[in-house]
Amino acid sequence: MARLRFQVSMSLDGFIAGPNPSVEDPLGEGGMALHEWAFKLAAWRKPHGREGGETNASSLIVEDGLQNIGATIMGRNMFGGGPGGWEAEPWNGWWGDDPPFHMPVFVLTHHAREPLHMRKGTTFFFVTDGIASALAQAKQAAAGKDVALGGGANAAQQYLRAGLIDELRLHVVPVLLGEGTRLFDHLAGAELKLEGPDALSTPEVTHLTYRLAK
Amino acid sequence: MARLRFQVSMSLDGFIAGPNPSVEDPLGEGGMALHEWAFKLAAWRKPHGREGGETNASSLIVEDGLQNIGATIMGRNMFGGGPGGWEAEPWNGWWGDDPPFHMPVFVLTHHAREPLHMRKGTTFFFVTDGIASALAQAKQAAAGKDVALGGGANAAQQYLRAGLIDELRLHVVPVLLGEGTRLFDHLAGAELKLEGPDALSTPEVTHLTYRLAK
Repeated sequence: MARLRFQVSMSLDGFIAGPNPSVEDPLGEGGMALHEWAFKLAAWRKPHGREGGETNASSLIVEDGLQNIGATIMGRNMFGGGPGGWEAEPWNGWWGDDPPFHMPVFVLTHHAREPLHMRKGTTFFFVTDGIASALAQAKQAAAGKDVALGGGANAAQQYLRAGLIDELRLHVVPVLLGEGTRLFDHLAGAELKLEGPDALSTPEVTHLTYRLAK
Repeated sequence: MARLRFQVSMSLDGFIAGPNPSVEDPLGEGGMALHEWAFKLAAWRKPHGREGGETNASSLIVEDGLQNIGATIMGRNMFGGGPGGWEAEPWNGWWGDDPPFHMPVFVLTHHAREPLHMRKGTTFFFVTDGIASALAQAKQAAAGKDVALGGGANAAQQYLRAGLIDELRLHVVPVLLGEGTRLFDHLAGAELKLEGPDALSTPEVTHLTYRLAK
Protein backbone atom coordinates (compact mmCIF):
# COMPACT_ATOMS: atom_id res chain seq x y z
CA MET A 1 0.00 0.00 0.00
CA ALA A 2 1.53 3.27 -1.12
CA ARG A 3 2.19 5.64 1.76
CA LEU A 4 2.50 9.39 2.15
CA ARG A 5 5.85 10.07 3.82
CA PHE A 6 6.96 13.37 5.27
CA GLN A 7 10.42 14.12 6.54
CA VAL A 8 11.75 17.42 7.77
CA SER A 9 14.64 18.86 9.74
CA MET A 10 13.51 20.56 12.92
CA SER A 11 15.24 22.41 15.73
CA LEU A 12 14.88 20.91 19.19
CA ASP A 13 12.44 23.71 19.98
CA GLY A 14 10.21 22.76 17.08
CA PHE A 15 11.08 25.19 14.29
CA ILE A 16 11.58 24.14 10.67
CA ALA A 17 12.62 27.63 9.54
CA GLY A 18 14.07 30.62 11.31
CA PRO A 19 12.45 34.04 11.61
CA ASN A 20 12.05 36.44 8.67
CA PRO A 21 12.23 34.03 5.73
CA SER A 22 12.45 35.72 2.34
CA VAL A 23 13.09 34.91 -1.30
CA GLU A 24 16.80 35.45 -0.67
CA ASP A 25 16.76 33.49 2.58
CA PRO A 26 13.91 30.98 2.40
CA LEU A 27 15.10 29.09 5.49
CA GLY A 28 14.99 32.22 7.66
CA GLU A 29 17.63 33.43 10.06
CA GLY A 30 19.57 30.50 11.47
CA GLY A 31 17.54 28.02 9.44
CA MET A 32 20.53 26.74 7.50
CA ALA A 33 21.78 25.14 10.71
CA LEU A 34 18.92 22.66 10.45
CA HIS A 35 20.25 21.22 7.21
CA GLU A 36 24.00 21.15 7.63
CA TRP A 37 23.93 17.53 8.80
CA ALA A 38 22.49 16.57 5.40
CA PHE A 39 24.34 18.96 3.11
CA LYS A 40 27.68 17.46 4.10
CA LEU A 41 26.69 13.91 3.23
CA ALA A 42 27.58 12.31 -0.08
CA ALA A 43 24.22 10.55 0.12
CA TRP A 44 22.52 13.95 -0.09
CA ARG A 45 24.96 15.68 -2.42
CA LYS A 46 24.99 13.11 -5.19
CA PRO A 47 21.23 13.16 -5.96
CA HIS A 48 21.41 16.95 -5.80
CA GLY A 49 24.16 17.04 -8.42
CA ARG A 50 26.97 17.95 -6.07
CA GLU A 51 30.29 16.26 -5.69
CA GLY A 52 32.09 15.03 -2.60
CA GLY A 53 30.71 14.69 0.85
CA GLU A 54 31.15 12.28 3.69
CA THR A 55 29.45 9.14 4.91
CA ASN A 56 28.25 8.62 8.44
CA ALA A 57 25.38 6.98 10.32
CA SER A 58 22.92 9.51 8.88
CA SER A 59 23.74 8.43 5.32
CA LEU A 60 21.47 5.41 5.61
CA ILE A 61 18.63 7.67 6.73
CA VAL A 62 19.08 9.94 3.72
CA GLU A 63 19.23 6.97 1.37
CA ASP A 64 16.15 5.41 2.94
CA GLY A 65 14.28 8.69 2.55
CA LEU A 66 14.87 8.61 -1.21
CA GLN A 67 13.95 4.96 -1.61
CA ASN A 68 10.71 3.88 -3.26
CA ILE A 69 9.40 7.41 -3.85
CA GLY A 70 7.38 7.76 -7.06
CA ALA A 71 5.98 11.28 -6.74
CA THR A 72 6.32 14.39 -4.60
CA ILE A 73 3.83 16.92 -3.23
CA MET A 74 4.82 20.40 -2.12
CA GLY A 75 3.25 23.68 -1.12
CA ARG A 76 3.45 26.71 -3.36
CA ASN A 77 6.25 28.33 -1.39
CA MET A 78 8.49 25.32 -1.83
CA PHE A 79 8.05 25.48 -5.59
CA GLY A 80 9.01 29.13 -5.58
CA GLY A 81 7.22 31.65 -3.47
CA GLY A 82 8.06 35.00 -2.10
CA PRO A 83 6.33 38.36 -1.85
CA GLY A 84 3.90 38.87 -4.69
CA GLY A 85 4.11 35.21 -5.53
CA TRP A 86 5.10 33.44 -8.72
CA GLU A 87 1.51 33.23 -9.82
CA ALA A 88 1.43 36.95 -10.68
CA GLU A 89 4.24 36.48 -13.16
CA PRO A 90 4.82 32.80 -13.75
CA TRP A 91 8.33 31.59 -13.47
CA ASN A 92 9.80 28.13 -13.22
CA GLY A 93 10.51 28.00 -9.51
CA TRP A 94 13.82 28.16 -7.78
CA TRP A 95 14.87 24.60 -8.46
CA GLY A 96 16.64 25.44 -11.74
CA ASP A 97 16.47 23.61 -15.07
CA ASP A 98 17.26 20.22 -13.55
CA PRO A 99 15.34 19.93 -10.29
CA PRO A 100 16.57 17.10 -8.05
CA PHE A 101 13.25 15.27 -8.05
CA HIS A 102 13.32 13.36 -11.36
CA MET A 103 9.67 12.44 -10.87
CA PRO A 104 6.23 14.07 -11.03
CA VAL A 105 5.87 16.88 -8.49
CA PHE A 106 2.43 18.13 -7.48
CA VAL A 107 2.35 21.76 -6.33
CA LEU A 108 -0.53 22.93 -4.15
CA THR A 109 -1.73 26.32 -5.39
CA HIS A 110 -4.83 28.37 -6.01
CA HIS A 111 -3.67 29.33 -9.50
CA ALA A 112 -4.20 26.94 -12.39
CA ARG A 113 -1.27 26.47 -14.73
CA GLU A 114 -0.20 24.03 -17.41
CA PRO A 115 2.27 21.32 -16.33
CA LEU A 116 5.87 22.42 -16.44
CA HIS A 117 8.29 19.89 -17.85
CA MET A 118 11.87 20.17 -16.67
CA ARG A 119 14.92 18.05 -17.40
CA LYS A 120 15.43 14.41 -16.48
CA GLY A 121 11.92 13.48 -15.58
CA THR A 122 10.82 16.29 -13.27
CA THR A 123 7.39 17.63 -14.19
CA PHE A 124 5.58 20.11 -12.00
CA PHE A 125 1.81 19.71 -11.94
CA PHE A 126 -0.23 22.51 -10.39
CA VAL A 127 -3.15 21.30 -8.31
CA THR A 128 -5.91 23.76 -7.45
CA ASP A 129 -8.54 21.47 -5.94
CA GLY A 130 -6.99 20.66 -2.59
CA ILE A 131 -4.71 18.32 -0.72
CA ALA A 132 -6.79 15.15 -1.13
CA SER A 133 -6.86 15.61 -4.88
CA ALA A 134 -3.11 16.24 -4.95
CA LEU A 135 -2.53 13.05 -2.99
CA ALA A 136 -4.79 11.02 -5.27
CA GLN A 137 -3.02 12.36 -8.36
CA ALA A 138 0.39 11.79 -6.82
CA LYS A 139 -0.44 8.22 -5.83
CA GLN A 140 -1.64 7.50 -9.35
CA ALA A 141 1.53 8.98 -10.81
CA ALA A 142 3.66 7.04 -8.32
CA ALA A 143 2.22 3.78 -9.66
CA GLY A 144 2.53 1.82 -6.47
CA LYS A 145 5.51 3.59 -5.00
CA ASP A 146 5.24 5.97 -2.04
CA VAL A 147 4.58 9.69 -2.22
CA ALA A 148 6.89 12.19 -0.50
CA LEU A 149 5.50 15.34 1.02
CA GLY A 150 8.18 17.96 0.56
CA GLY A 151 6.67 20.65 2.78
CA GLY A 152 6.51 23.36 3.84
CA ALA A 153 4.89 23.87 7.20
CA ASN A 154 1.49 24.91 5.90
CA ALA A 155 1.16 21.94 3.56
CA ALA A 156 2.40 19.59 6.29
CA GLN A 157 -0.12 20.94 8.78
CA GLN A 158 -2.94 20.54 6.27
CA TYR A 159 -2.01 16.91 5.64
CA LEU A 160 -1.52 16.22 9.35
CA ARG A 161 -4.92 17.71 10.24
CA ALA A 162 -6.53 15.57 7.55
CA GLY A 163 -4.82 12.43 8.91
CA LEU A 164 -3.32 11.68 5.50
CA ILE A 165 0.33 11.25 6.48
CA ASP A 166 1.48 7.67 7.02
CA GLU A 167 5.08 8.22 8.06
CA LEU A 168 6.57 11.22 9.84
CA ARG A 169 10.35 11.40 10.06
CA LEU A 170 11.86 14.21 12.08
CA HIS A 171 15.52 15.09 11.88
CA VAL A 172 15.88 16.83 15.23
CA VAL A 173 18.90 19.11 15.30
CA PRO A 174 20.35 20.12 18.70
CA VAL A 175 19.85 23.85 18.28
CA LEU A 176 17.26 26.21 19.71
CA LEU A 177 16.12 28.82 17.19
CA GLY A 178 13.81 30.58 19.64
CA GLU A 179 11.51 31.82 16.90
CA GLY A 180 10.51 31.07 13.35
CA THR A 181 8.08 28.68 11.70
CA ARG A 182 6.89 25.84 13.90
CA LEU A 183 6.14 22.47 12.34
CA PHE A 184 3.54 21.63 14.97
CA ASP A 185 1.19 24.57 14.91
CA HIS A 186 -2.46 25.04 14.04
CA LEU A 187 -3.10 21.42 14.94
CA ALA A 188 -5.49 21.88 17.89
CA GLY A 189 -8.21 19.27 17.72
CA ALA A 190 -6.40 17.03 15.25
CA GLU A 191 -6.54 13.52 16.63
CA LEU A 192 -3.44 11.72 15.50
CA LYS A 193 -2.14 8.44 16.80
CA LEU A 194 1.59 7.96 16.46
CA GLU A 195 3.51 4.73 16.73
CA GLY A 196 7.20 4.34 17.21
CA PRO A 197 9.62 5.89 16.79
CA ASP A 198 12.52 4.21 15.17
CA ALA A 199 15.36 6.33 16.52
CA LEU A 200 18.91 6.90 15.36
CA SER A 201 21.04 9.60 16.90
CA THR A 202 24.39 11.18 16.09
CA PRO A 203 25.94 14.24 17.74
CA GLU A 204 24.58 16.31 14.85
CA VAL A 205 21.02 15.07 14.48
CA THR A 206 18.48 12.68 15.94
CA HIS A 207 16.32 10.86 13.41
CA LEU A 208 12.88 9.89 14.74
CA THR A 209 10.56 7.97 12.45
CA TYR A 210 6.91 7.65 13.47
CA ARG A 211 4.07 5.77 11.84
CA LEU A 212 0.68 7.39 11.97
CA ALA A 213 -2.11 4.93 12.63
CA LYS A 214 -5.31 5.28 10.65
CA MET B 1 31.30 20.39 39.52
CA ALA B 2 27.67 20.39 40.59
CA ARG B 3 25.26 20.73 37.69
CA LEU B 4 21.71 22.00 37.25
CA ARG B 5 19.74 19.22 35.61
CA PHE B 6 16.27 19.57 34.12
CA GLN B 7 14.16 16.71 32.86
CA VAL B 8 10.61 16.86 31.62
CA SER B 9 8.12 14.80 29.66
CA MET B 10 7.04 16.50 26.44
CA SER B 11 4.67 15.67 23.64
CA LEU B 12 6.22 15.34 20.19
CA ASP B 13 4.69 18.71 19.34
CA GLY B 14 6.45 20.37 22.25
CA PHE B 15 3.86 20.63 25.02
CA ILE B 16 4.58 19.75 28.65
CA ALA B 17 0.98 20.29 29.77
CA GLY B 18 -2.33 20.19 27.97
CA PRO B 19 -4.77 23.08 27.63
CA ASN B 20 -6.82 24.46 30.53
CA PRO B 21 -4.71 23.34 33.51
CA SER B 22 -6.37 23.86 36.89
CA VAL B 23 -5.91 22.99 40.54
CA GLU B 24 -7.92 19.83 39.94
CA ASP B 25 -6.12 19.01 36.69
CA PRO B 26 -2.65 20.56 36.87
CA LEU B 27 -1.41 18.67 33.80
CA GLY B 28 -4.20 20.05 31.61
CA GLU B 29 -6.38 18.14 29.21
CA GLY B 30 -4.52 15.15 27.85
CA GLY B 31 -1.44 15.98 29.90
CA MET B 32 -1.51 12.74 31.85
CA ALA B 33 -0.55 10.92 28.67
CA LEU B 34 2.89 12.49 28.94
CA HIS B 35 3.63 10.71 32.20
CA GLU B 36 2.13 7.26 31.82
CA TRP B 37 5.45 5.81 30.69
CA ALA B 38 6.90 6.76 34.09
CA PHE B 39 3.95 6.10 36.36
CA LYS B 40 3.92 2.44 35.39
CA LEU B 41 7.56 1.87 36.30
CA ALA B 42 8.63 0.43 39.64
CA ALA B 43 11.64 2.76 39.42
CA TRP B 44 9.25 5.73 39.59
CA ARG B 45 6.63 4.23 41.92
CA LYS B 46 8.96 3.18 44.70
CA PRO B 47 10.47 6.63 45.45
CA HIS B 48 6.95 8.04 45.26
CA GLY B 49 5.70 5.60 47.90
CA ARG B 50 3.71 3.39 45.55
CA GLU B 51 3.88 -0.35 45.22
CA GLY B 52 4.28 -2.51 42.16
CA GLY B 53 5.17 -1.43 38.68
CA GLU B 54 7.19 -2.87 35.88
CA THR B 55 10.76 -2.64 34.69
CA ASN B 56 11.76 -1.81 31.14
CA ALA B 57 14.45 0.10 29.26
CA SER B 58 13.17 3.40 30.66
CA SER B 59 13.79 2.26 34.24
CA LEU B 60 17.48 3.06 33.96
CA ILE B 61 16.62 6.56 32.80
CA VAL B 62 14.35 7.12 35.79
CA GLU B 63 16.96 5.79 38.18
CA ASP B 64 19.66 7.92 36.62
CA GLY B 65 17.46 10.99 36.96
CA LEU B 66 17.26 10.46 40.70
CA GLN B 67 20.96 9.80 41.15
CA ASN B 68 23.28 12.29 42.78
CA ILE B 69 20.61 14.97 43.32
CA GLY B 70 21.12 16.99 46.52
CA ALA B 71 18.50 19.72 46.16
CA THR B 72 15.54 20.68 43.98
CA ILE B 73 14.29 23.99 42.58
CA MET B 74 10.72 24.52 41.43
CA GLY B 75 8.37 27.31 40.41
CA ARG B 76 5.53 28.41 42.65
CA ASN B 77 2.90 26.51 40.65
CA MET B 78 4.71 23.24 41.14
CA PHE B 79 4.73 23.74 44.88
CA GLY B 80 1.03 24.38 44.89
CA GLY B 81 -0.53 27.03 42.74
CA GLY B 82 -3.95 27.62 41.36
CA PRO B 83 -6.30 30.57 41.12
CA GLY B 84 -5.72 33.05 43.94
CA GLY B 85 -2.48 31.31 44.79
CA TRP B 86 -1.28 29.69 47.97
CA GLU B 87 0.38 32.91 49.08
CA ALA B 88 -2.97 34.52 49.90
CA GLU B 89 -3.74 31.82 52.40
CA PRO B 90 -0.63 29.77 53.04
CA TRP B 91 -0.97 26.05 52.76
CA ASN B 92 1.55 23.29 52.53
CA GLY B 93 1.37 22.59 48.82
CA TRP B 94 -0.12 19.62 47.12
CA TRP B 95 2.67 17.20 47.82
CA GLY B 96 1.17 15.97 51.10
CA ASP B 97 2.90 15.39 54.44
CA ASP B 98 5.64 13.24 52.96
CA PRO B 99 6.72 14.84 49.68
CA PRO B 100 8.80 12.53 47.48
CA PHE B 101 11.86 14.78 47.47
CA HIS B 102 13.54 13.96 50.79
CA MET B 103 15.89 16.89 50.28
CA PRO B 104 15.84 20.69 50.41
CA VAL B 105 13.43 22.18 47.84
CA PHE B 106 13.74 25.81 46.80
CA VAL B 107 10.48 27.38 45.64
CA LEU B 108 10.61 30.47 43.41
CA THR B 109 8.04 32.97 44.62
CA HIS B 110 7.46 36.67 45.22
CA HIS B 111 6.08 36.02 48.72
CA ALA B 112 8.47 35.52 51.61
CA ARG B 113 7.67 32.71 53.97
CA GLU B 114 9.43 30.73 56.69
CA PRO B 115 10.87 27.36 55.64
CA LEU B 116 8.36 24.55 55.76
CA HIS B 117 9.66 21.30 57.22
CA MET B 118 7.92 18.15 56.04
CA ARG B 119 8.58 14.48 56.82
CA LYS B 120 11.67 12.51 55.93
CA GLY B 121 13.98 15.31 55.00
CA THR B 122 11.90 17.45 52.66
CA THR B 123 12.11 21.14 53.57
CA PHE B 124 10.61 23.81 51.34
CA PHE B 125 12.56 27.08 51.25
CA PHE B 126 10.86 30.06 49.68
CA VAL B 127 13.18 32.21 47.56
CA THR B 128 12.11 35.72 46.67
CA ASP B 129 15.28 37.16 45.16
CA GLY B 130 15.39 35.39 41.82
CA ILE B 131 16.57 32.32 39.99
CA ALA B 132 20.32 32.89 40.42
CA SER B 133 19.91 33.18 44.18
CA ALA B 134 17.78 30.04 44.26
CA LEU B 135 20.45 28.17 42.31
CA ALA B 136 23.23 29.39 44.60
CA GLN B 137 21.26 28.38 47.71
CA ALA B 138 20.36 25.02 46.20
CA LYS B 139 23.95 24.28 45.24
CA GLN B 140 25.09 25.11 48.74
CA ALA B 141 22.43 22.85 50.21
CA ALA B 142 23.31 20.09 47.76
CA ALA B 143 26.86 20.05 49.13
CA GLY B 144 28.53 18.93 45.94
CA LYS B 145 25.68 16.92 44.48
CA ASP B 146 23.67 18.14 41.50
CA VAL B 147 20.55 20.29 41.64
CA ALA B 148 17.34 19.21 39.91
CA LEU B 149 15.06 21.77 38.35
CA GLY B 150 11.56 20.42 38.82
CA GLY B 151 9.72 22.88 36.57
CA GLY B 152 7.34 24.15 35.47
CA ALA B 153 7.58 25.80 32.08
CA ASN B 154 8.03 29.33 33.36
CA ALA B 155 10.86 28.41 35.71
CA ALA B 156 12.50 26.28 33.02
CA GLN B 157 12.35 29.11 30.50
CA GLN B 158 13.86 31.54 32.99
CA TYR B 159 16.77 29.20 33.67
CA LEU B 160 17.22 28.41 29.96
CA ARG B 161 17.28 32.11 29.04
CA ALA B 162 19.88 32.72 31.73
CA GLY B 163 22.03 29.87 30.41
CA LEU B 164 22.08 28.21 33.84
CA ILE B 165 20.95 24.71 32.90
CA ASP B 166 23.74 22.17 32.40
CA GLU B 167 21.75 19.11 31.39
CA LEU B 168 18.41 18.99 29.58
CA ARG B 169 16.68 15.61 29.39
CA LEU B 170 13.50 15.39 27.35
CA HIS B 171 11.19 12.42 27.56
CA VAL B 172 9.47 12.79 24.19
CA VAL B 173 6.14 10.99 24.13
CA PRO B 174 4.66 10.06 20.73
CA VAL B 175 1.47 12.06 21.10
CA LEU B 176 0.40 15.37 19.62
CA LEU B 177 -1.51 17.51 22.11
CA GLY B 178 -2.13 20.33 19.63
CA GLU B 179 -2.35 22.96 22.36
CA GLY B 180 -1.27 23.60 25.91
CA THR B 181 1.92 24.83 27.56
CA ARG B 182 5.00 24.71 25.37
CA LEU B 183 8.37 24.01 26.97
CA PHE B 184 10.23 26.01 24.33
CA ASP B 185 8.52 29.36 24.35
CA HIS B 186 9.60 32.90 25.20
CA LEU B 187 13.16 31.95 24.30
CA ALA B 188 13.76 34.29 21.35
CA GLY B 189 17.27 35.68 21.54
CA ALA B 190 18.54 33.12 24.03
CA GLU B 191 21.81 31.80 22.68
CA LEU B 192 22.17 28.24 23.86
CA LYS B 193 24.59 25.67 22.58
CA LEU B 194 23.48 22.09 22.96
CA GLU B 195 25.63 18.99 22.73
CA GLY B 196 24.47 15.45 22.30
CA PRO B 197 22.04 13.91 22.72
CA ASP B 198 22.36 10.60 24.36
CA ALA B 199 19.27 8.88 23.02
CA LEU B 200 17.25 5.90 24.19
CA SER B 201 13.93 5.08 22.64
CA THR B 202 11.10 2.69 23.46
CA PRO B 203 7.68 2.53 21.78
CA GLU B 204 6.35 4.66 24.65
CA VAL B 205 8.93 7.38 25.01
CA THR B 206 12.18 8.69 23.55
CA HIS B 207 14.72 9.93 26.08
CA LEU B 208 17.03 12.63 24.72
CA THR B 209 19.73 13.99 27.04
CA TYR B 210 21.54 17.14 25.99
CA ARG B 211 24.43 18.96 27.62
CA LEU B 212 24.37 22.73 27.45
CA ALA B 213 27.77 24.23 26.80
CA LYS B 214 28.78 27.29 28.75
